[in-house]
Amino acid sequence: MKFIDLRSDTVTTPTPKMREAMFSAEVGDDVYGDDPTVRELEELAAQRIGKEAALFVPSGTMGNQLALMTHTQRGDEVILGEDCHIFKYEVGAPAVLSGVQLRGLKTNGGMMDLEEVKAAIRPNDIHMPRTSLICLENAYSSGEVVPLHYLEKIREIAESHGLKIHLDGARIFNAAIYLGVDAREIARYADSVMFCLSKGLSAPVGSILAGSREFVEKARKYRKLLGGGMRQAGILAAAGMVALKEMVDRLCEDHENALYLAQKLINLGFEVDLKKVQINMVWARAKSHLNIEDLPEKLLAEGIKINPPINGLFRFVTHKDVTKGDIDKFVEILAKTMQVGEQV
Amino acid sequence: MKFIDLRSDTVTTPTPKMREAMFSAEVGDDVYGDDPTVRELEELAAQRIGKEAALFVPSGTMGNQLALMTHTQRGDEVILGEDCHIFKYEVGAPAVLSGVQLRGLKTNGGMMDLEEVKAAIRPNDIHMPRTSLICLENAYSSGEVVPLHYLEKIREIAESHGLKIHLDGARIFNAAIYLGVDAREIARYADSVMFCLSKGLSAPVGSILAGSREFVEKARKYRKLLGGGMRQAGILAAAGMVALKEMVDRLCEDHENALYLAQKLINLGFEVDLKKVQINMVWARAKSHLNIEDLPEKLLAEGIKINPPINGLFRFVTHKDVTKGDIDKFVEILAKTMQVGEQV
Amino acid sequence: MKFIDLRSDTVTTPTPKMREAMFSAEVGDDVYGDDPTVRELEELAAQRIGKEAALFVPSGTMGNQLALMTHTQRGDEVILGEDCHIFKYEVGAPAVLSGVQLRGLKTNGGMMDLEEVKAAIRPNDIHMPRTSLICLENAYSSGEVVPLHYLEKIREIAESHGLKIHLDGARIFNAAIYLGVDAREIARYADSVMFCLSKGLSAPVGSILAGSREFVEKARKYRKLLGGGMRQAGILAAAGMVALKEMVDRLCEDHENALYLAQKLINLGFEVDLKKVQINMVWARAKSHLNIEDLPEKLLAEGIKINPPINGLFRFVTHKDVTKGDIDKFVEILAKTMQVGEQV
Amino acid sequence: MKFIDLRSDTVTTPTPKMREAMFSAEVGDDVYGDDPTVRELEELAAQRIGKEAALFVPSGTMGNQLALMTHTQRGDEVILGEDCHIFKYEVGAPAVLSGVQLRGLKTNGGMMDLEEVKAAIRPNDIHMPRTSLICLENAYSSGEVVPLHYLEKIREIAESHGLKIHLDGARIFNAAIYLGVDAREIARYADSVMFCLSKGLSAPVGSILAGSREFVEKARKYRKLLGGGMRQAGILAAAGMVALKEMVDRLCEDHENALYLAQKLINLGFEVDLKKVQINMVWARAKSHLNIEDLPEKLLAEGIKINPPINGLFRFVTHKDVTKGDIDKFVEILAKTMQVGEQV
Repeated sequence: MKFIDLRSDTVTTPTPKMREAMFSAEVGDDVYGDDPTVRELEELAAQRIGKEAALFVPSGTMGNQLALMTHTQRGDEVILGEDCHIFKYEVGAPAVLSGVQLRGLKTNGGMMDLEEVKAAIRPNDIHMPRTSLICLENAYSSGEVVPLHYLEKIREIAESHGLKIHLDGARIFNAAIYLGVDAREIARYADSVMFCLSKGLSAPVGSILAGSREFVEKARKYRKLLGGGMRQAGILAAAGMVALKEMVDRLCEDHENALYLAQKLINLGFEVDLKKVQINMVWARAKSHLNIEDLPEKLLAEGIKINPPINGLFRFVTHKDVTKGDIDKFVEILAKTMQVGEQV
Repeated sequence: MKFIDLRSDTVTTPTPKMREAMFSAEVGDDVYGDDPTVRELEELAAQRIGKEAALFVPSGTMGNQLALMTHTQRGDEVILGEDCHIFKYEVGAPAVLSGVQLRGLKTNGGMMDLEEVKAAIRPNDIHMPRTSLICLENAYSSGEVVPLHYLEKIREIAESHGLKIHLDGARIFNAAIYLGVDAREIARYADSVMFCLSKGLSAPVGSILAGSREFVEKARKYRKLLGGGMRQAGILAAAGMVALKEMVDRLCEDHENALYLAQKLINLGFEVDLKKVQINMVWARAKSHLNIEDLPEKLLAEGIKINPPINGLFRFVTHKDVTKGDIDKFVEILAKTMQVGEQV
Repeated sequence: MKFIDLRSDTVTTPTPKMREAMFSAEVGDDVYGDDPTVRELEELAAQRIGKEAALFVPSGTMGNQLALMTHTQRGDEVILGEDCHIFKYEVGAPAVLSGVQLRGLKTNGGMMDLEEVKAAIRPNDIHMPRTSLICLENAYSSGEVVPLHYLEKIREIAESHGLKIHLDGARIFNAAIYLGVDAREIARYADSVMFCLSKGLSAPVGSILAGSREFVEKARKYRKLLGGGMRQAGILAAAGMVALKEMVDRLCEDHENALYLAQKLINLGFEVDLKKVQINMVWARAKSHLNIEDLPEKLLAEGIKINPPINGLFRFVTHKDVTKGDIDKFVEILAKTMQVGEQV
Repeated sequence: MKFIDLRSDTVTTPTPKMREAMFSAEVGDDVYGDDPTVRELEELAAQRIGKEAALFVPSGTMGNQLALMTHTQRGDEVILGEDCHIFKYEVGAPAVLSGVQLRGLKTNGGMMDLEEVKAAIRPNDIHMPRTSLICLENAYSSGEVVPLHYLEKIREIAESHGLKIHLDGARIFNAAIYLGVDAREIARYADSVMFCLSKGLSAPVGSILAGSREFVEKARKYRKLLGGGMRQAGILAAAGMVALKEMVDRLCEDHENALYLAQKLINLGFEVDLKKVQINMVWARAKSHLNIEDLPEKLLAEGIKINPPINGLFRFVTHKDVTKGDIDKFVEILAKTMQVGEQV
């Protein structure tokens, strides 16, 4: 059964071109630095994001955590949004791996208040950890895109306090499309950037961590420590090459589809803030809480996968395996399912 | 020169009785469990706070950190106020020592919003750390006292989610006086409690960590790991005995003096929220920011020690080495110093 | 240029059948548990090694480290050979990830002395960490295979002291061939086993961590924490299926080739202990240290890759990409190169 | 009941002069840097050991662990004797607090083989932790003293590889007496030194960590993190002053008493290697294992405290609270007790 899967863009399957690239990939032992395809991808990725060097890693979580390990020393404190991916969805790894404390700040549109950021930077005091890093996320987990002028301001704050910036750019290309700029224009405000080749770009496995050459070499060693050193990783890198070369521009379709879906959901009686539909995510609130808890299960029976709502709020994500036609079908089935629910 | 020191109640010096007790203390090697005075103190302290067992530790920070190490496993998450001592003033220790992530929530009157606490407890999800502990603080760092009915509610939440509660009761006896209850009535809502024999109780060194017998034995081993196992610690415990037996009841004087000082500061033009002067702390805001930055330095020359203001806000702390007469003198000198400042 | 690569069996490239399997693999998002190929591999692997459950991980290092994280608590001590992979080649990860201390013992033939193991188990003493785990390795890094009766004895020791056993079985199938038993016969003495699908089995990326269902579920969460959760990992798992189904039996060829190479090296004047050539590794010492330091470089120019000697000792590893003919060619070139060296 | 306690020199009780010094000590809040007695002690201690600066800590374990935290970064490896205090008796703290791996080497007379030390230093290799520190111990836990020429050689190795040296000098003054040199002559080979004011020097609580000013300031912050920052620590420091000024020279009595005891034990039929009785420790092996397991219990009834034997080997420690007369009495009771045992 072919499902319409709106849970996340992590569910995207590799394209035929990726499968062919993997099939014929030239590989070697990457721990020895012998895999030509990995090296090619790392070079391309570094260039594409405007950094000196890049490292191929098995997941976005590993990329982010390597950045924390590399930028910080045990006992440091890191400032970041309290609802960003690193804080909420990385299993508490920063404390375990880096021994650092997270200082989570409220966000609005993916942005921490600049005055709160400044106030959160620790003075040199024997009772306090040293603040060494700010983590940003763009596009944010909320599906909102952080503007360049905000990044510029955060950069100023970081530099004036001797802090580094790591950017969780899992969906940086989505953000770049929304802002109408090259991804490098976003990445330039950060000392290191992680972005995913999976998710919207549809590679089966893998993310990139980019930064200065020195940063990447330190991160490479930490990658080995975490068990992220892979042997003939060129197989995956070959798909990553296709992702980077051919899948970036088409992300705008996902954005259009998200808006298309958002409008249909509004028509169906959902509350959606259209201003916040900036990339490929739609957050929709059912007017009535009636029957929404078992919607995922009911829709699954109809060939549609969605995540359960959190406090009445659904997140639907569009991607290359969801066509406009799929959206029509989804909305139709959703309408039918909810009507049935209401009648009961 | 004898200073009037309003920086903190940590500056209290031992009483003559404490000095005598230390002089004649019977001691032994406490690592071997051979120090009779330490054992006596630990028994008294456990009883005084209503727990099965207690452990003598060199500082409140160590007591709190041992509680975290003992209640949690590496990778857990801990819910606590974002401005509590553990989060703000313990050098980021929870990540280094316990490998746990802190989830700091806003507080009001030392209390986190109960709905926010519930929402912060993690579901069983592969992306998320396990929530295992809630840390409370009473009296709170703000000088405010958390009421019993709030503790009861938090306890219900903790129990219904299988969480433990640790109480940072550095100033639990101040809280008990304000609430008009025995300290046990506060401690009973927590699985473990730390309280300080230094601070208002005036012992030179030492705090107590109390809980179940099993908890204390685990914490005792972690104390050794942190290097907190002391040899003839009975010297310090002897002073702690005096603190616990003779210094608790007099804390109400410090509270009265704090209110006395608060009123005088209002008269002098400071803003003080009298409702928040609940223990031995006065938070006072100068109406004009004129010259306040160098007040500590100017007052020092006059024999008065205060901490620099944080964002225009001063914290003054009363304790046994500050008499009503000292307060009069302080306010007088303060008035003079500020007048001079304004004239310039 | 096609190299003869004797550095390690980690350099093996995927077979055509693996490439085809990857090309046509059915995949899904494995973090959601949706990848059918990963699930199939994990089931097959568990069955093949005789454990309840199994987990697919990107590297042997990650598999070993997850075992440590899952079996231990922060502050524990782990007994293992001082020259095993976990101690020597995993970047000090046990301290960083698990917070555990390693107690390395001398080994002989991959075996720690049983009396030393017993003596290394810590009593219940406040000065001492808790011993919670013994790590074994079979085949050992030395290329030697540990016999079943030794495993049985270690198992008895572990059980009588309440310790767990983790087996680093990166090359467990090589060991099984040497012992003439099924790999399950080795694995049954351990609570958890890691084995590699890469190395001799030639999959491009991936290892398996197997144990009880409960153990694997805990390890799965730690895998996410380390960033080892991969999305459409079925691509790699498809190659892993081929590795497990079709590549195990042919390992005996590598063993034969190793003996063949060993004999040739002896003829050439190298010292080789033939009794220790038990799997696909040959340790050979040049009689004279003359010119051996630059052998790797000289041979590279001739299309042969070897690792530099450690204290005059070379390790050569055979695998599916090294034929008998390659060995003949290697020895011929080696002879020529060393002769030239001696003449100079 | 006054016991003759031969378990350790940690059991020494404070002298009358120490009690007086504590009674009249001038104190302040040391976290604020306000305790004059602590400052005086830290200055004296730094000077006495020949280092720029010193830090007062509640235990030798904390001093050692702070040194590790300060000299290393997470993920480093530390070379040290496998039977030294840090490895054996500090509860596995290095992994928990510093995230470092210990590389324990065999020792002989408290000395690691120099070639083994060199071989243990890790090359720059992606599979390996960075070696950053060597830990020495002098006098060693075995009661043996490491000669200066050995320290000089280790120093050369450390410097040529960019490693730091920390010296666990818990009994450095005992070592200095045996070597007939000033303690500074031992300390100069190390970047940091810990020594105990308790143990033979008889202060009730406290040790010193000394090194460069920068090192001590970093260690001071880590001390706060571990909860080792104490308030009116001048009480303890006052006793430490006496220990340092008046108790060092008398250690030679303990050494003489140890030899006196050793000879008597030999006469009684124990095996004692007199060459190894270098400080205040006697290791004695009973000729027959008959009844030795319950000797501690039997002697306790006679007012004598000893530790249970480890593998038939007893350690007896002399100190200021054990006189020559006490030794005579102990040996007499021992003889009687063992005779009775043999008769049965």
